[in-house]
Amino acid sequence: MRAALVYANFAPRPGYKISQDELRTHKVREGSKVWRNPKLVLRTDYPVPEPKPDEILIRVKAVGICGSDIHFLETDEEGYIIYPGLTRFPVVIGHEFSGVVEKVGANVRGLKPGDMVTSEEMFWCGECDACRGIDFNHCIRLNDPADLEFGELGFTHDGAMADYVVVKAKYAWKINSLLERYGSEDRAFEAGSLVEPTSVAYHAMFTRAGGFKPGSYVVVWGAGPIGLAAIALAKAAGAGKIIAFEVSPVRRELAKKVGADYVFNPVELEKNGVQPWEKILEVTDGQGADFHVEAAGAPQYTLPQIQRSIAIDGKITWIGRAPKEVPIYLEVFQVRRGQLFGSQGHSGFRNFGNVIRLMAAGRIDMTQVITSKFKLDEVHKAFERAHQRIDGKITIKP
Amino acid sequence: MRAALVYANFAPRPGYKISQDELRTHKVREGSKVWRNPKLVLRTDYPVPEPKPDEILIRVKAVGICGSDIHFLETDEEGYIIYPGLTRFPVVIGHEFSGVVEKVGANVRGLKPGDMVTSEEMFWCGECDACRGIDFNHCIRLNDPADLEFGELGFTHDGAMADYVVVKAKYAWKINSLLERYGSEDRAFEAGSLVEPTSVAYHAMFTRAGGFKPGSYVVVWGAGPIGLAAIALAKAAGAGKIIAFEVSPVRRELAKKVGADYVFNPVELEKNGVQPWEKILEVTDGQGADFHVEAAGAPQYTLPQIQRSIAIDGKITWIGRAPKEVPIYLEVFQVRRGQLFGSQGHSGFRNFGNVIRLMAAGRIDMTQVITSKFKLDEVHKAFERAHQRIDGKITIKP
Amino acid sequence: MRAALVYANFAPRPGYKISQDELRTHKVREGSKVWRNPKLVLRTDYPVPEPKPDEILIRVKAVGICGSDIHFLETDEEGYIIYPGLTRFPVVIGHEFSGVVEKVGANVRGLKPGDMVTSEEMFWCGECDACRGIDFNHCIRLNDPADLEFGELGFTHDGAMADYVVVKAKYAWKINSLLERYGSEDRAFEAGSLVEPTSVAYHAMFTRAGGFKPGSYVVVWGAGPIGLAAIALAKAAGAGKIIAFEVSPVRRELAKKVGADYVFNPVELEKNGVQPWEKILEVTDGQGADFHVEAAGAPQYTLPQIQRSIAIDGKITWIGRAPKEVPIYLEVFQVRRGQLFGSQGHSGFRNFGNVIRLMAAGRIDMTQVITSKFKLDEVHKAFERAHQRIDGKITIKP
Amino acid sequence: MRAALVYANFAPRPGYKISQDELRTHKVREGSKVWRNPKLVLRTDYPVPEPKPDEILIRVKAVGICGSDIHFLETDEEGYIIYPGLTRFPVVIGHEFSGVVEKVGANVRGLKPGDMVTSEEMFWCGECDACRGIDFNHCIRLNDPADLEFGELGFTHDGAMADYVVVKAKYAWKINSLLERYGSEDRAFEAGSLVEPTSVAYHAMFTRAGGFKPGSYVVVWGAGPIGLAAIALAKAAGAGKIIAFEVSPVRRELAKKVGADYVFNPVELEKNGVQPWEKILEVTDGQGADFHVEAAGAPQYTLPQIQRSIAIDGKITWIGRAPKEVPIYLEVFQVRRGQLFGSQGHSGFRNFGNVIRLMAAGRIDMTQVITSKFKLDEVHKAFERAHQRIDGKITIKP
Repeated sequence: MRAALVYANFAPRPGYKISQDELRTHKVREGSKVWRNPKLVLRTDYPVPEPKPDEILIRVKAVGICGSDIHFLETDEEGYIIYPGLTRFPVVIGHEFSGVVEKVGANVRGLKPGDMVTSEEMFWCGECDACRGIDFNHCIRLNDPADLEFGELGFTHDGAMADYVVVKAKYAWKINSLLERYGSEDRAFEAGSLVEPTSVAYHAMFTRAGGFKPGSYVVVWGAGPIGLAAIALAKAAGAGKIIAFEVSPVRRELAKKVGADYVFNPVELEKNGVQPWEKILEVTDGQGADFHVEAAGAPQYTLPQIQRSIAIDGKITWIGRAPKEVPIYLEVFQVRRGQLFGSQGHSGFRNFGNVIRLMAAGRIDMTQVITSKFKLDEVHKAFERAHQRIDGKITIKP
Repeated sequence: MRAALVYANFAPRPGYKISQDELRTHKVREGSKVWRNPKLVLRTDYPVPEPKPDEILIRVKAVGICGSDIHFLETDEEGYIIYPGLTRFPVVIGHEFSGVVEKVGANVRGLKPGDMVTSEEMFWCGECDACRGIDFNHCIRLNDPADLEFGELGFTHDGAMADYVVVKAKYAWKINSLLERYGSEDRAFEAGSLVEPTSVAYHAMFTRAGGFKPGSYVVVWGAGPIGLAAIALAKAAGAGKIIAFEVSPVRRELAKKVGADYVFNPVELEKNGVQPWEKILEVTDGQGADFHVEAAGAPQYTLPQIQRSIAIDGKITWIGRAPKEVPIYLEVFQVRRGQLFGSQGHSGFRNFGNVIRLMAAGRIDMTQVITSKFKLDEVHKAFERAHQRIDGKITIKP
Repeated sequence: MRAALVYANFAPRPGYKISQDELRTHKVREGSKVWRNPKLVLRTDYPVPEPKPDEILIRVKAVGICGSDIHFLETDEEGYIIYPGLTRFPVVIGHEFSGVVEKVGANVRGLKPGDMVTSEEMFWCGECDACRGIDFNHCIRLNDPADLEFGELGFTHDGAMADYVVVKAKYAWKINSLLERYGSEDRAFEAGSLVEPTSVAYHAMFTRAGGFKPGSYVVVWGAGPIGLAAIALAKAAGAGKIIAFEVSPVRRELAKKVGADYVFNPVELEKNGVQPWEKILEVTDGQGADFHVEAAGAPQYTLPQIQRSIAIDGKITWIGRAPKEVPIYLEVFQVRRGQLFGSQGHSGFRNFGNVIRLMAAGRIDMTQVITSKFKLDEVHKAFERAHQRIDGKITIKP
Repeated sequence: MRAALVYANFAPRPGYKISQDELRTHKVREGSKVWRNPKLVLRTDYPVPEPKPDEILIRVKAVGICGSDIHFLETDEEGYIIYPGLTRFPVVIGHEFSGVVEKVGANVRGLKPGDMVTSEEMFWCGECDACRGIDFNHCIRLNDPADLEFGELGFTHDGAMADYVVVKAKYAWKINSLLERYGSEDRAFEAGSLVEPTSVAYHAMFTRAGGFKPGSYVVVWGAGPIGLAAIALAKAAGAGKIIAFEVSPVRRELAKKVGADYVFNPVELEKNGVQPWEKILEVTDGQGADFHVEAAGAPQYTLPQIQRSIAIDGKITWIGRAPKEVPIYLEVFQVRRGQLFGSQGHSGFRNFGNVIRLMAAGRIDMTQVITSKFKLDEVHKAFERAHQRIDGKITIKP
């Protein structure tokens, strides 16, 4: 079958302490410290995977390019990949996808060939202390370099930028209900490929941070695919006003489309001597925003703004990643009764199920953020465009 | 000024133990045990009230007729009023209202003549153990027959079916923001008169029961004004599907209008040998409803249906009043992981503020439920119609 | 090895609709409708089970007799067992146990021979919609008669009243930490055998119902092993006052021992014309109890008492099972701002882990409730005593 | 009567922008920017205050010296007071107190002469948007320099380091229940004077941060009076292990006394090349602490330690004040699923009531932290000692 793989040299940076397990398995925790000279290869001879008893084989119908996919292929001056996290190359990439069940393993229940599905990207074990007690998104085995059974789809395990992909049945979610809403299989699969990134925002907003009361004022920092999902979800969940900040004009346009009431370009604001927090106070009549979603990964910039514009009793949910220290002024959290929730992942808690319901009900339509489509054969072209960062979401179809 | 008052004879039923305080103050806890031969009188010589230092005087612009107003005037075979709760007649009725601030007391801050406002109906003291610790809706002094300072607007204190009304400033909420949304003062005041009943539903759903996660399936039992508000709010808050049950055809129509996806007439269902719970399971693909709002006040009928149609981890919030025992099957709450929340009132927790924000944002438009309008001079005609129960909401304007 | 099994005739009651799956697998949902003429047999030739790759073999050190074990062997007038739930006979009974890991399957991590352990009794799949989304205690496969992989230890799968038992490693919890607290292995294993029933109370109180604020007044209805655990936990968690109701004198004694401040015999109260709710109001200065734990399984008796003694904002958590309808007065839940949570099971949410920590810290000492000990060879004698219901907990040791 | 007042010069620092309201009322928001050359004066001719209709007059029986009292009298090199917050001098200081009701205003209910009471220190209005909607601790009028009715007892309104003090009845809490527990009035009043600081810790831990599950591992940073209360409360609420860090030997001793399982001196640790986070991981078996209470006001030091020792799903509640920016590493909050809650104040939510219940039940005994007692006439001596910072709590009695 066809499959788009990332290859890279296993070349731990001088001075980087790599573990024995990582050396042995090449499942490494900090990708940017290890992988060099990445290369995207479209193979046509890749073997179709065979589902194990608890797995299903899925014919891929749509798969999005994620920021992490792009960071696999972009490098620093020394040739190391930008992506800082868990990786095991070579790997078929692609984890925001949907498709049709082609074959099910002997022990699989509740799924049958022909079912339309999407899948979680986090391969959680369901048995470790984190999984059995708290949260699949913090699965210990998923992150353990010694453990090759669990990891992340399209990062450590072959993903969906291919004709076929296998996942354990427990990660799969039916999206048959999207067919009626979208009218055509084609569009239903496009929507289905966006369930995963939307669930990342959903998890952060409603599961981790406990959501907001309808009528609340919501600010979304950054309108990349996660930020756009956050805007659409805030709209669906009854935000009184939604304010978004984003530098890219395409994404500002999309932010409006999916539901933002106010969209500002912080660069332009600054030119006029205005700061985002001032805009927020203006729009909220001086009350500030009750709920801040950080989807920009730019804490050095966003945190000071949030601190000056958080309403009394306001919440912050933090999705954007940025491995760096930034200054915080804790007094604000006391004087304004603030609370901060860090979030990662999308699994568990019916996040996927609820996102699919919202799509099926037409309460959110994330297909609006797809601005480019390519065939799998054009995967190199798709990535060329992706590196330009002029799109909402780029989707690849068979 | 003009004012519509309810007069009735203070005639404690034989055998009813009335307290000394009630005898003295006529502020009685169980109206239907005491008040007889009620009469609606439109006076034209009623004195315009003078605001105390912490009060405001409001010129009324719109006031709705509530079910309780109707129950003040409907009697049983012995001539006692139907309304069972806190009352002190004679009183100017009317508590779902909006108007313009005419005058403010010396100590009032944040409000000035000309401001558009609505008001809470519960006159909570803010100082008793319930108020300072838990919830204004359970204020001890409000319910204390010995205390004439606190009570309920239009029940124990002169209400808004009049040219003017006074309330303490702490119960008032600005609705200036509705003007922009609705374009005309006229419509903005109509919307404003619906903030109170909508806040009753909001409080039950989002404050007491903690709301539901976006995508959840919601059932609303009964589509009177509170049920209709619940439907509109469920829509605004991201329900995946909303199912309503209601016997009145007018209200079924309105239920659809404000956002219900499925509306059933239980009487008709029964004729076809179908029960509501079966419909719910059908519509939810066998999963049941995650959130039930009881706004029918008919637990003998609704509770068994809810028990057969509640999803795992489902919640029930109970608004409808019905002073009777009904059978419950607690096993269901264990097997389905169910939870039940009783709710009364609307005060505190920014309920009013959030409802006003939702209206200002156009996320809910409760003016759709107004099906009849009368002038204050026509108040008797308005109540004649109200007794027919063929309306969504009847609104009276100066 | 030695093993105590329950044998019974598979004899579905006339008129009981048994499913095809139940007929085929004998894993039946309603035991009392199917099993007749039960018999306790101590076999000495039972094969030592062999752990599969994800399982561990445990040498049993202590196992308690649970109420359900007793109900397996008690019958109605037609000879059917009393126990109403999921069962598959013949089965080695016993699910409240502790022991030493003897052998681990090939895929097991984090456990090794010699570890002291206890185990959950609910064999949840971790993959169905209930497990991956909400709560292992509502696992669909556990309850599915067609599924023989999952079920309940000592109910559908061979339990711990034997020399050895196997469980999947994911159900096991280390109790090595109890050794230091208790000084001797012997007592540590006794404590360990009580983790399961204590976790049932813990789950209901702290996970399902969200616990209570320190200082709250707590009532525990029924002081059987679950009720006693609830009392001990309420004490550990900072209850301001703990009031227990129990008819058995032995258990009243134990209730005091584990932490109840007030223990009443409802039968005796009644003789004196006093009702439990009156006592509660007396003890709480008229405020009522903030948190009620129903561990009696007698809703027809307890619910009316709770309704008259619940504090404003009070919670009820319901553990006791009773498959019958009882009257509820929902007005109370509105006027008192009450909330009701049904609870079943003990798995997930770190319940076991937290109970073990509380034991290790000496914050609770459940070994106080063990009032009789027997050797495994004396299992018949142990059950003879169990049927007399004069004990706190009867524990069987090798 | 006798009364200990702080006098200081109203001398706004050059460059400090003081508002017109502050100039007029001398109720200033940032004390350290305005007040110079403070002086403690014990007057004997101070008039006994007369309670207004909603107030009570209290004869003071015990009053503690708080850190803020000390900071009123300590100055920087330019003679400005250290205390940075809301102040209006001259004022009778003292806000951690208890006493006997001497006289009640005409409108006061539920309190009568002879009642033993303590009082909240925050004079919240109960009417502003913060009060009616969210949290008395964020009362707008309390903080408003233009508003002389509301403020803080002993900061802007005459406090309790005097023979008598008045407070509005709504701030007062009965402590009669402490008498039975403590046996003597004397000791009951001592306990009562500690309700306020204990409620600050209670509010932060259980109200703001939602508490922890019994069995959780708790770390308390700083063992001043608030930290000591946090330790006692953590013990009462079922912490599995309590670890405290404190530099003062007296306070380390007290930390043990009130319930800490492990108490470390960070200075000494450092000498041995060990960091606090390492100790936490050691004590918690590598799992980290589930609940961190910051009562040190030293974020630059504590936050990095917390970040390295927070358990998955851990919470941080922040009480210590420190008006400075410090570095935060938000990744930790994502990877460890962390959450941060800022807290201030003690009012509302039955905090006081629950603390009093815990004291009455003997679940906490804060009188253990009183290490010095003085007569009111010795107030200068008391402060001399207070400046040495060698005590747990210094208590002044008539």
